Amino acid sequence: VAGRTSEPGRSVTSRVLTILDAFDIEHPRLTLSEIARRAALPLATAHRLVAELVAWRGLERDEDGTYHVGLRLWEVGLLGPLHTRLRAVAMPFLQSLYETTRENVHLAVRDGFDALYVEKLSGHRSVPIVSRIGGRLPMHATGVGKALLAYQPKEFVQEYLSGPLARPTQYTIVERGRLRRDLAATRRRGYAVTSEEMTLGTCSVAVPVIDRDRHPVAAVGVVVHTVRVEPGKLAPPTRLAAEGIAARLDATRDDPYPDYVHDYPRLPGGGERGQA
Amino acid sequence: VAGRTSEPGRSVTSRVLTILDAFDIEHPRLTLSEIARRAALPLATAHRLVAELVAWRGLERDEDGTYHVGLRLWEVGLLGPLHTRLRAVAMPFLQSLYETTRENVHLAVRDGFDALYVEKLSGHRSVPIVSRIGGRLPMHATGVGKALLAYQPKEFVQEYLSGPLARPTQYTIVERGRLRRDLAATRRRGYAVTSEEMTLGTCSVAVPVIDRDRHPVAAVGVVVHTVRVEPGKLAPPTRLAAEGIAARLDATRDDPYPDYVHDYPRLPGGGERGQA
Repeated sequence: VAGRTSEPGRSVTSRVLTILDAFDIEHPRLTLSEIARRAALPLATAHRLVAELVAWRGLERDEDGTYHVGLRLWEVGLLGPLHTRLRAVAMPFLQSLYETTRENVHLAVRDGFDALYVEKLSGHRSVPIVSRIGGRLPMHATGVGKALLAYQPKEFVQEYLSGPLARPTQYTIVERGRLRRDLAATRRRGYAVTSEEMTLGTCSVAVPVIDRDRHPVAAVGVVVHTVRVEPGKLAPPTRLAAEGIAARLDATRDDPYPDYVHDYPRLPGGGERGQA
Repeated sequence: VAGRTSEPGRSVTSRVLTILDAFDIEHPRLTLSEIARRAALPLATAHRLVAELVAWRGLERDEDGTYHVGLRLWEVGLLGPLHTRLRAVAMPFLQSLYETTRENVHLAVRDGFDALYVEKLSGHRSVPIVSRIGGRLPMHATGVGKALLAYQPKEFVQEYLSGPLARPTQYTIVERGRLRRDLAATRRRGYAVTSEEMTLGTCSVAVPVIDRDRHPVAAVGVVVHTVRVEPGKLAPPTRLAAEGIAARLDATRDDPYPDYVHDYPRLPGGGERGQA
């Protein structure tokens, strides 16, 4: 069948995507044989598909022969609405929040059962933490995660609580009744609080970004050294950012790229390139 | 041949990649027939490949039937070294520069004949400009571009100057002799200056990030309102950021992800997920 390899049920497309899946944050550089093994592909097949991905610059080959995710995948990935819309709208508000606090500032969304980090601002003085843009962390152990979880439908929370709960530290709340009470308190206060539940020595405050349909479309959080934490002081500027983002998302809801300045004269066929 | 469609010379992989190429910043949302037309594929082929990309979440379908770049492509793209290494190392220095100036702060690299923007920090008070993360602008019209161009080998500059030069404003320097003198001045000063050459009403200062082999691996720039510009004042903090980034890139050159905190206990098979 056109578009399929000899292996039944596995299309060429799925093989290409499996090669991309072979890379993750713990495996950012892979040799060809590692790619083949992780993608469960014959070496010859992996070789051919990797070569096509390299030609497109979706993968790039290092001098030592390892491959990493290439410039073109990075470029295409940034065309999605998480970056062009949510991140673009949120950025000035996150920046103000960072200026107020000088601490790690996060923007996250829910994806499946994870808090997925869309933006992270941090400076030299911010406490080092495990979050990263494009990374996932457990919802019940993080500020942004609890802010998102607290505003999910009851059925979702029920399903979340019925699964296994990771325990990154001894302070992570994994007892279901206690977690439910914590989520209820989060809704009452309007913000989530964590205390060494994800990383020892750090605490956080987070506020959901609620849209006009009352869905929590994102959450804004600040993570600080435990010794510096004053949730009562961190909550108001964090709420200000979350509410600002919600209002701006609503005001620009028909604009796929609110941040984009369309005033640069394009060269014919040249896209944004300086030379056509 | 396995892995190839009936059309000679065009593999399934290349067709999948052509579908991704159909999206750009001017076309972030496309219908199926627009994808087929832009990728020069039969509608049935486009339909099948798009369905596979949607299943992987490389593309996502909106309620109105249009497709956009999906979460999974964004996630995978962020595993590349532009994000995990260059951006990670640069971020605290960029953040300090932003705090000092409160203006648009850029981090860019050279790709082909373009300045490719890797990071952009801006606040509510920063002047709106055309740059965007993942976007490309002409090297000769931008601060970061001129900083990168000034430190390229002579042959590269010769080739650049022999091509057509875009002219986004009437102040863009497109006269070759003048541009050469401007690049020489940039090398003498150690920083590039633009004055309304990319966008009317804005000026910029930019400094290259020079590695131990004296290659300009990136450039740091600040873009301000013309009325606020004082290149002599902007240059020192910008240079401080560029030199800090260069030193840190050198100190961490064997670390693919200098920013990554590896202390979070993984669940078996769960990656970073909260629930395995």
